[in-house]
Amino acid sequence: MRRKLWSVFVVAALGAGYGASAFSQAKPETLVKQRQAAMTLQGKYFYGSLNPMAQGKIPYDAAVAARNAGYLEILSKLPWDGFAESTKGVNSGALPAVWAEPAKFKAAQDRLQTAVAALVAATKGGDEATVKAAIGDLGKACGNCHDNFAKQ
Amino acid sequence: MRRKLWSVFVVAALGAGYGASAFSQAKPETLVKQRQAAMTLQGKYFYGSLNPMAQGKIPYDAAVAARNAGYLEILSKLPWDGFAESTKGVNSGALPAVWAEPAKFKAAQDRLQTAVAALVAATKGGDEATVKAAIGDLGKACGNCHDNFAKQ
Repeated sequence: MRRKLWSVFVVAALGAGYGASAFSQAKPETLVKQRQAAMTLQGKYFYGSLNPMAQGKIPYDAAVAARNAGYLEILSKLPWDGFAESTKGVNSGALPAVWAEPAKFKAAQDRLQTAVAALVAATKGGDEATVKAAIGDLGKACGNCHDNFAKQ
Repeated sequence: MRRKLWSVFVVAALGAGYGASAFSQAKPETLVKQRQAAMTLQGKYFYGSLNPMAQGKIPYDAAVAARNAGYLEILSKLPWDGFAESTKGVNSGALPAVWAEPAKFKAAQDRLQTAVAALVAATKGGDEATVKAAIGDLGKACGNCHDNFAKQ
């Protein structure tokens, strides 16, 4: 029921003491959970099929590659507002560099989104080798950010 | 580093005993985590801003409404393959009806996606009342599915 779902959300928000501003200022634990959810789904669609395709571990499927690239085009936008200052004290996989080096962190996000855009373009062109190369570049963008800003 | 990220995924997949088919058959706990991630993000973009906008609890913002509708257009496709038979035994918020009434569950998913499509169309038209009505219908579609297939 809508009321039931809604009340779960409101109780969680009010529990953080935000009151009227609950909707613009989610509690830190919620922000962490949401950004981790975005990472989990990026992992599903990248490491679960695109990367093993590029490595020849599963058969190349152009339709799945195009679909997943489209999903990642959205998913790669979703984690970043979850790294609010308010979440610095919450236990997570994020390294302090996220808040200490915001320009570098933003550049890493931009590199990811550029790599995703290149993959989307490649899947529209339809050439398997180009798509696989774009998948490789995207993996490097994931790895670059995790190297500097995540515990793994 | 890409290798580090990749190895985390592979170890998790191989840990489930899937070996060569790790990529097509994620382990049940991973599927549950991924489907819950999709639900978490649907909650972020619906209950975190669209629903309070429709209820007048936060100011209406046409750009945010359109953006979130676009996100939900993708996110509303992502949970469903996570409800594999293999996950029946994993502790989660899913009720047994998910597997006992697959046609009804599929109809509830379709209702959600139809409501999201209507919201996307409404945000493109730009009329605030129409968008708010579409948000209300989408909330009912969420609630309808949770009523029948989720513990909350």
